[in-house]
Amino acid sequence: MRSSRLVSKKHKEKPAEAQLISHIFLLRGGYVRPVANGIYSLLMPAKRIQSKIIDIIREEMDKIDGQEIQMPITLPRELWDESGRWDGVEAELLRFQDRSNHDMLLAMTHEEAVVALARTEVTSYKDYPFMLYQFQTKFRDEARSRGGLVRVREFVMKDAYSFHTSQADLDNYYNACAKAYHNIFRRCGIPEVVSIQSDSGKMGGKVAHEYQLLTDSGEDKVVVCEKCKTYANNEVAICSFKTEPEVILDLETFETPNVKTIEELEKFTGQPATKMAKMVFYTTEKGETVGVIVRGDVEVNECKLGKILQSEFMFASDDEVLKTGAIPGFASGIGLKCRVLVDYSVANGYNMICGANREGYHMNNFNVARDIPHAEIVDIATVKTGDICSKCGAELTIKRGIEVGNIFKLGTRYSKAMNMTYTDDKGQEQTPIMGCYGIGIGRLLASVCEVRNDAYGPIWPLSIAPWQVQLCAMKLDKPEIVEAAESIYADLQNAGVEILYDDRNLTAGVQFAEADLTGIPLRLIVAPRALAQGMIEYKIRGTNETGLIPLNEVTSFVQNWIQQEMEKYK
Amino acid sequence: MRSSRLVSKKHKEKPAEAQLISHIFLLRGGYVRPVANGIYSLLMPAKRIQSKIIDIIREEMDKIDGQEIQMPITLPRELWDESGRWDGVEAELLRFQDRSNHDMLLAMTHEEAVVALARTEVTSYKDYPFMLYQFQTKFRDEARSRGGLVRVREFVMKDAYSFHTSQADLDNYYNACAKAYHNIFRRCGIPEVVSIQSDSGKMGGKVAHEYQLLTDSGEDKVVVCEKCKTYANNEVAICSFKTEPEVILDLETFETPNVKTIEELEKFTGQPATKMAKMVFYTTEKGETVGVIVRGDVEVNECKLGKILQSEFMFASDDEVLKTGAIPGFASGIGLKCRVLVDYSVANGYNMICGANREGYHMNNFNVARDIPHAEIVDIATVKTGDICSKCGAELTIKRGIEVGNIFKLGTRYSKAMNMTYTDDKGQEQTPIMGCYGIGIGRLLASVCEVRNDAYGPIWPLSIAPWQVQLCAMKLDKPEIVEAAESIYADLQNAGVEILYDDRNLTAGVQFAEADLTGIPLRLIVAPRALAQGMIEYKIRGTNETGLIPLNEVTSFVQNWIQQEMEKYK
Repeated sequence: MRSSRLVSKKHKEKPAEAQLISHIFLLRGGYVRPVANGIYSLLMPAKRIQSKIIDIIREEMDKIDGQEIQMPITLPRELWDESGRWDGVEAELLRFQDRSNHDMLLAMTHEEAVVALARTEVTSYKDYPFMLYQFQTKFRDEARSRGGLVRVREFVMKDAYSFHTSQADLDNYYNACAKAYHNIFRRCGIPEVVSIQSDSGKMGGKVAHEYQLLTDSGEDKVVVCEKCKTYANNEVAICSFKTEPEVILDLETFETPNVKTIEELEKFTGQPATKMAKMVFYTTEKGETVGVIVRGDVEVNECKLGKILQSEFMFASDDEVLKTGAIPGFASGIGLKCRVLVDYSVANGYNMICGANREGYHMNNFNVARDIPHAEIVDIATVKTGDICSKCGAELTIKRGIEVGNIFKLGTRYSKAMNMTYTDDKGQEQTPIMGCYGIGIGRLLASVCEVRNDAYGPIWPLSIAPWQVQLCAMKLDKPEIVEAAESIYADLQNAGVEILYDDRNLTAGVQFAEADLTGIPLRLIVAPRALAQGMIEYKIRGTNETGLIPLNEVTSFVQNWIQQEMEKYK
Repeated sequence: MRSSRLVSKKHKEKPAEAQLISHIFLLRGGYVRPVANGIYSLLMPAKRIQSKIIDIIREEMDKIDGQEIQMPITLPRELWDESGRWDGVEAELLRFQDRSNHDMLLAMTHEEAVVALARTEVTSYKDYPFMLYQFQTKFRDEARSRGGLVRVREFVMKDAYSFHTSQADLDNYYNACAKAYHNIFRRCGIPEVVSIQSDSGKMGGKVAHEYQLLTDSGEDKVVVCEKCKTYANNEVAICSFKTEPEVILDLETFETPNVKTIEELEKFTGQPATKMAKMVFYTTEKGETVGVIVRGDVEVNECKLGKILQSEFMFASDDEVLKTGAIPGFASGIGLKCRVLVDYSVANGYNMICGANREGYHMNNFNVARDIPHAEIVDIATVKTGDICSKCGAELTIKRGIEVGNIFKLGTRYSKAMNMTYTDDKGQEQTPIMGCYGIGIGRLLASVCEVRNDAYGPIWPLSIAPWQVQLCAMKLDKPEIVEAAESIYADLQNAGVEILYDDRNLTAGVQFAEADLTGIPLRLIVAPRALAQGMIEYKIRGTNETGLIPLNEVTSFVQNWIQQEMEKYK
């Protein structure tokens, strides 16, 4: 490809709307252009990267016996009625009516479609297990699409669905897919992606893992134990709240005028927040008010709470709190007329301070097992930096991550709802067990850019670089330069090398700045001084490695370099 | 791939809903499954064919300097307001609102999106010409989607857009693209596709060609001259209406009681319909009534009429006809108070019979030039079988065709409306000239099936076959059969051959019937009798060619056969 022909304008300035590194470079480097909020066009360089990522994923999916199919983007409501998701999913599901006033949707995921497809094709246990996958555009009407390709509304996703006759078979396949995912990220040049157990959320399964690329620009929080190398999404992460046993003392009420917050209580009593039981009240969609007790230094994890309550919820009003028998600001779980959830951080404590359910008073020596024996002990804490790893006892840290993939054990959530069955070896009808496995292609592309860059642009791994070689030529007004550059360009093309040739006779400064933004790993430079000695220069993007290559060895040098470099991504 | 693992059920019976051969075989052969009206899922065999078609098209687009990009499926209304198509296109454009009540659409074509993309990237004449293309899903809310993949609502399309600084440059590129199209169809195994000039319709251009695969199951009508090998879409086809000159005679009115139709007039006068001038009245959207005169044996071509009137229209009512001064059933163009269009079939005639604008009377010796000198002479005839080729004088025939591609010279229709400009070599702002070029992938797949089949199934050309080799094994309960079949399967896979291995131990009848439906060109059969002699059988699908191959020559035979066969599709 000649740069003079390439439709991909480079920009010197940082675009006002972009904060993320990948967003900035993808705009500046002429990779993507916004079309609407969270909706982008991909120019040739991004399209080429995307195609290479897709090829890598396809290879890995085929290796674990995936069958590539294609399901439509537009789906009829009936399928989502069967699964219950037509009404069950909020505004991010784009619903519309076709010209016959038929309710339809833009698929944000394809569980329903794949079950509808597979249930008519596969009816015997002999045909199990199988996995179907596709690369297909999804639409999710995100309220807060931002960050360029990291969070968009329309995107190409690899989604895969496996079907099994036993939990053990799903477990095996799930593990095989987890390995394939690590291969994919390694081959795309981000081997540091970690897999962590996650909340399976709206997918309705029980076990799920997400693949997080740890980087400060990520919007997810990941709890990391550097010592035992365990990672967890903040939404489900746990930590240890073990404390030294104490002799259990009698409850004592003491006056605390106008002392309502933990901070005030710390000042007032001189005790640390870790000695306090904080109570928070929530009201569910059905109007039930629930009291939640966590340690003074711990925040309630609303994701965990949602799973316990199986409902949307909001903070209770003072009136709602009063109806439970508690006094706002001075609440304790003792004697309340409502459901009470107690986090392990409090359940494991001794002789703590809590409210007295009496305006202006708190109590000392609160012990859950003795004082509220009927409360539910649950894990409902938000882990924070400095909390203790429950596996190894080291201190945990919170890092930021971008979720670049996820896998779910769906179980029978969809197959049961949609009456998919097979006949087992005894002639009995059974419901298959499913897994599903997703990777967003555009987000993966942006994520690589997010961690493989320098101040001047992306540094694409060779496996997914838009081209393998960047050819720059200085002083293209000199015939000998043109001749050498054109000859190298032709030779490398004939050798099957993917090459971008900057044939525009621009200054070295402009050419190199644009080449940096294009991020091609191997750069060849035809310039008068070296050429006079029958040499050209090369430079490896993102390193200090440079050198000279004799003109007659350029093709073999490039081929060898590519072959060697690609070993990393096999 | 092992058949035992393949999710693609074959059906013996013709599906009730299918009439077209491709629709029947694509359903019976487990290629596609309907999801909603005009919306399909593709199973692995169809997906593989589609991928190969896409690869062929990509190669040909790259050869003519195309740059593959990707534009979104969902577009904001603003872009289509700029071009005027938000309001200009009817119900087949799917409009919807996103969660912010923003008007959006599912793109049925991407002229607006590509202009919006290119106008910010390319600003100098030096960067011209260029062509951008993509493979992208389109949605057209067709009222009458039918025929399986031939006419659907959601489909993947290759759409390409070229940009030029002169008409001559567009013309050159248009011709290059026309050649690429012929390459594509040839390489996909349908070299018989013909290119014909067509109506450019809603695309707003002036010159357009469509690529028609002539087959009885097509829904388009193509006018064919077998002698001079010219083809035209019935919507724009012309024919010769030259007649022998006659001495012009005086108009004569004669009584024709209750004789209103051409048929009645033929009986009454004993003259042929070719001597008669038939008048038809239409009323436009704006309420203008227009009289159209064609020869008695000729039908008005409503596509041509629409382009002349630049309006929607319907037949005029008797009241509307009367207002023009004409008498329904006895109308002539003489002395009317309305616009009168006369087809060449009448303008070239002499002494014809027409109405007398008087109830119960006709006139003889009607001559357009003398009697209605101010009428507009236009081409408005529908060509029919037996009409005369205007180039060579041979008789024309009407054939059926499936449109498998189209190309348009758009001119400045979109670039002008959307203010796309470039600076020319004199520093002046200019509007670029565009072409656009489309191929529907699914329809192309179905079209190949439509003409490459026998009574038992499709006969896929090797270039796009789902697999290159079908391996059948008889009596898989015998260990020596299993051993030979597995060994061939492994050897061919290692040699890079795409192979589908029926490992299910089914009867020869079932295996062959399913293999016929899968339509793979080269079939290998491992069976006891030949194997006892160290041989396997082969059969070329769709021919009578069969033979034996020594076991130790299978791989080389297959590789040679593939190499030779692929020569056809290079």
